[in-house]
Amino acid sequence: MKEKLLSVEDLTIDTGVQQMILKSRDEGVKTAFDRNSEIGARCTFGELGVCCKRCLAGPCRILPGGKGPQTGVCGATADQIVARNFLEMVAQGMAPHIEHAREVALTLLETAEGKAPYEIKNPEKLINIASRLGLTVDGKEIEEVAKDVALKALESFQQQYGILPWLEMNANQKTLARWKELNIIPANAHQELTVAINRVTMGSDADPVNLLLGVMRLGITDGYAGLHLSTDLQDVLFGTPGLVKSKYRLGVIKEKMVNISVHGHIPMLADKVVEWAEKLEDEAKAVGAEGINVFGICCSANEVLMRKGIPVATNFASQEAPILTGAVEAMAVDIQCVMPSLPTVSNDYHTEVITSLPYSKIPGASHIEFTPAKADEVAQAVVRKGIANFGKRDPEKMQIPPEIVDAYAGFSTEQIVEALKNVNPEDPLKPLVDNIKAGNILGVVALVGCTNPRVKQDWANVEMAKELLKHNVMVVATGCSAHSLGKFGLLSSEGLEYCGDGLKQVLTAVGQANGMEALPSVLHMGSCVDNSRIADLVSALADYIGVEAKDLPVAGSTPEIMNPKALAIGAYFLAHGVDVHVGIMPPIGGSELVTNVLTGSKEEHELTTDGLFGGKVIYEKDPIEAAHVVIERIKQKRAELFGE
Amino acid sequence: MKEKLLSVEDLTIDTGVQQMILKSRDEGVKTAFDRNSEIGARCTFGELGVCCKRCLAGPCRILPGGKGPQTGVCGATADQIVARNFLEMVAQGMAPHIEHAREVALTLLETAEGKAPYEIKNPEKLINIASRLGLTVDGKEIEEVAKDVALKALESFQQQYGILPWLEMNANQKTLARWKELNIIPANAHQELTVAINRVTMGSDADPVNLLLGVMRLGITDGYAGLHLSTDLQDVLFGTPGLVKSKYRLGVIKEKMVNISVHGHIPMLADKVVEWAEKLEDEAKAVGAEGINVFGICCSANEVLMRKGIPVATNFASQEAPILTGAVEAMAVDIQCVMPSLPTVSNDYHTEVITSLPYSKIPGASHIEFTPAKADEVAQAVVRKGIANFGKRDPEKMQIPPEIVDAYAGFSTEQIVEALKNVNPEDPLKPLVDNIKAGNILGVVALVGCTNPRVKQDWANVEMAKELLKHNVMVVATGCSAHSLGKFGLLSSEGLEYCGDGLKQVLTAVGQANGMEALPSVLHMGSCVDNSRIADLVSALADYIGVEAKDLPVAGSTPEIMNPKALAIGAYFLAHGVDVHVGIMPPIGGSELVTNVLTGSKEEHELTTDGLFGGKVIYEKDPIEAAHVVIERIKQKRAELFGE
Repeated sequence: MKEKLLSVEDLTIDTGVQQMILKSRDEGVKTAFDRNSEIGARCTFGELGVCCKRCLAGPCRILPGGKGPQTGVCGATADQIVARNFLEMVAQGMAPHIEHAREVALTLLETAEGKAPYEIKNPEKLINIASRLGLTVDGKEIEEVAKDVALKALESFQQQYGILPWLEMNANQKTLARWKELNIIPANAHQELTVAINRVTMGSDADPVNLLLGVMRLGITDGYAGLHLSTDLQDVLFGTPGLVKSKYRLGVIKEKMVNISVHGHIPMLADKVVEWAEKLEDEAKAVGAEGINVFGICCSANEVLMRKGIPVATNFASQEAPILTGAVEAMAVDIQCVMPSLPTVSNDYHTEVITSLPYSKIPGASHIEFTPAKADEVAQAVVRKGIANFGKRDPEKMQIPPEIVDAYAGFSTEQIVEALKNVNPEDPLKPLVDNIKAGNILGVVALVGCTNPRVKQDWANVEMAKELLKHNVMVVATGCSAHSLGKFGLLSSEGLEYCGDGLKQVLTAVGQANGMEALPSVLHMGSCVDNSRIADLVSALADYIGVEAKDLPVAGSTPEIMNPKALAIGAYFLAHGVDVHVGIMPPIGGSELVTNVLTGSKEEHELTTDGLFGGKVIYEKDPIEAAHVVIERIKQKRAELFGE
Repeated sequence: MKEKLLSVEDLTIDTGVQQMILKSRDEGVKTAFDRNSEIGARCTFGELGVCCKRCLAGPCRILPGGKGPQTGVCGATADQIVARNFLEMVAQGMAPHIEHAREVALTLLETAEGKAPYEIKNPEKLINIASRLGLTVDGKEIEEVAKDVALKALESFQQQYGILPWLEMNANQKTLARWKELNIIPANAHQELTVAINRVTMGSDADPVNLLLGVMRLGITDGYAGLHLSTDLQDVLFGTPGLVKSKYRLGVIKEKMVNISVHGHIPMLADKVVEWAEKLEDEAKAVGAEGINVFGICCSANEVLMRKGIPVATNFASQEAPILTGAVEAMAVDIQCVMPSLPTVSNDYHTEVITSLPYSKIPGASHIEFTPAKADEVAQAVVRKGIANFGKRDPEKMQIPPEIVDAYAGFSTEQIVEALKNVNPEDPLKPLVDNIKAGNILGVVALVGCTNPRVKQDWANVEMAKELLKHNVMVVATGCSAHSLGKFGLLSSEGLEYCGDGLKQVLTAVGQANGMEALPSVLHMGSCVDNSRIADLVSALADYIGVEAKDLPVAGSTPEIMNPKALAIGAYFLAHGVDVHVGIMPPIGGSELVTNVLTGSKEEHELTTDGLFGGKVIYEKDPIEAAHVVIERIKQKRAELFGE
């Protein structure tokens, strides 16, 4: 099938990626951008969420608008089908996060027991966590404390009754009480996932509102047994991020070096690859390279960027582009957002794609099985494969786009508080809150999530950020969205040109108190699991003012959402009463009821997430329009909070 | 939309159900049979399994035959999409079973702690289980033993490493070794479910064969943390079934009595409803009824049929029919296979549909929340609602089909061994094995699973059974398939007329040794979770002969499969090397690779389930043809085993 290929300027605003798409077309290689065009119009039933494949009496589908059958064979209505599908999609978003967290907890346990070659890099944070969990720390070796914390963390996947430990440790009491009334307090994340899958199966839960409460329950689980747990234990094992300077775009790939990419999500392998790349530098030189250059893609990138300043080549949609440079020797992947196309693309190049988890393989990739105990061994093998492949380059196929951009990252909540302490040592949050109250900062928006070949890459993320900044909305970012902003100078003080005067003044003042020209226009707070850091910041502000998160002029936005993980994170914010903007409509349009519950305002109906929790889903494709809808809601919340 | 309605004779062979479909049409009420016709042709992509809705870059779909795009946006191929969808479908089949088992384990725990109003009805079985689990029983109160067993059972959902306790307790060592080599030994069922969902998400496992090994892993989990665990603990709490006589078909609904239906799966509520129906008999008489008649639908029916001889009205596809009689006062449901249409149908009747689980509600139904601790209270409320509704009947709408059929049930493995002991007290399995060896019994087939409105109800189940019996294949049955056979006389000695001479002789001899005219032509072994009993019987035979299950001339068959639970059970049998026949093709047809792995013979390729495990999936729509394919495979296995 010959599809008319779109102009590369319509596919991405990243000129380096544009160059690689053109190269791919010349060489007859297909990338996600062109596969997306080939697929063309999507299935209407699928897009509206009205297709049900839950049993062998189907598949059934409801044509909206009253034409055709209005129920499946079992009698399920569009409302029921859409609500079940949506709950399942959020469950699919949550599963990777809770498994990520559990693997980190097991690694901490094995580290404490001396079975895995990691260290407790941040004992202070470990002790702080242990104390907040109510564990005894006095008189204990740090390994003992680590073991206790790891075992407590694992209870998040084991306990049959009670409250998730990280929820109990973190939650606002008023918010918790509201959740208790709605019966959506999770006890254990594996159980929540299983109950969710159980309830969406054929002939089980058929109450759309009940199912949507199930979505909120998964959101809470995602936040406290996925995001917070991962971030906390990773900070313990790998250190809490602090300010780092790094670089963005395909230009970070170095012509004369062995280039190794880390890609995926769980930092255990990525961190070790960085370590062994340093240690095996001489072996690279022995094969004629100047050294070893590790760079990142997706959230593996974020983990090693935040903690080690490792540069970032690109984000999700263009993950195939580094291979197309012809200069990448190895790409080590773990799980989540890893396109199965990678080994197919690398067929025509010398890049070796290496999978590492037993339950996440790709035909055509090499597989080296990672376990925490074997971390050093596996990382060495990955680096050595990279070195061995250096000589296999085809110089005729090499083409590295030159663009490269400076960026700052490492803005953990701890780092932000540190920076604020240089303004007000006794009361660090005061300057921030004062500036919010005064309107110099209108509000705070978390720009999170993905890039998606259905949206011009980076464009919506960048435009949304710029429009918010212009209106003095402070922007913090994570995930692939943060990468979009990094590629276009928004993670450095260059981006200040887009900020309104009030915001510019605050970022400059805080930056200068910290010996910088100014803070970056957007603060990069980490990977997707590090949305926990954003939640911590929001909680700190709410506590300081003496309100709940839902009362603050804050919102989340994911303009180029692709992975359901962003929906699970969205549900987490929503449960806290924080609005969530999505630039692509999740498959709920086939049910007016579901759409109303999620996107309606409390003024319209009490039984909306806005009425029950204080936040709602905002769907708007156009980033400029979206910014203004978000700003309007921020102004409403300001009015209620400050009586403006 | 006016669809041409099919003749009721084409929809079901159950004349009572035919009568009710006609009645529904007269009254303008829609049943599953007519909804099925309305839906008409199914979505080809859905049926072939090539539709992917795992992220917001899609939905994507692959048109088989090389026309159109051959990958999704991320590059996923038809093989990858089909394998992921199939693993997810099996996960959806497993989730209900493991949650069922966990709820029973929690009930046993609460019973042991004196918090729930159940008793240890079978202390011998409890002690036997405890001993096999390696728990200390000597000198312990029975409640202590129960608590230990319950806690051990809960480890099936908690332990991070190791082997599922019920797997360790039951498995054949050779089979276990094979599974270990393939790395498919489950440690905990919640973890297995979560890993499965994690690996099928966007950008995760993309290796079709690895995903299919994941299917086998879920099958093993389903068997040992779902089926076996449920059956064992239910036998402890409610007693191990023994021979009972009961009745089948809509005629079991009694004109002059308060009729209460139990429907769903987990026996905790159903058992208590039966108990309280007896206790509240006088209250029913006080409103003018002759008494209270409890009857069952689906597997709730099986649980109270097997243990208490409660009659069965009908099975899955016609679950709406009892409401249409106008004589059912209450229908208490829990979860699984419960059509969301029930309250819609009952809108026009006086039947009160009552849901009982917090995560399984239906709009329009009454909801009384069940917990094991409140079991008596909830069951009383259900029965009293039934009594209160007796006076609301509309005599003009009453029409009870008169057909009623005798049936025997209660054939637990224990009961079968008991019966055989009356033939050979010292060596009870000997007569069975001798008759298999001699060819009087050609083999054993488990007829299991559902009815499905896409297949003429009961027809395929009954025809398959008759054809097998005719060729001297011993048939055991569970689930809705057993109900199909019960409705048509195959669960009594009436069915002997269909048996070949060898089989007839054996059934007669064993029956007469037990004071009966003969055993029924088919042995009803229980609910869908009681497929564990069939597995026990197969294991006992294999152990006796000194081989593995895969070597025996046995097979499973689900001619009218509807719920993915049957696929999970199928995967369990497949992992043991037992062939599984399906009468409806699961959505795998879009991948030649997946289809070949599951349905190919070891002669064709080593990397098939037949090559790796010793059993394969047999798809055949026509029950007579299917019986012959199964018989051929049985003959092959006999040839290899007995050198025939």
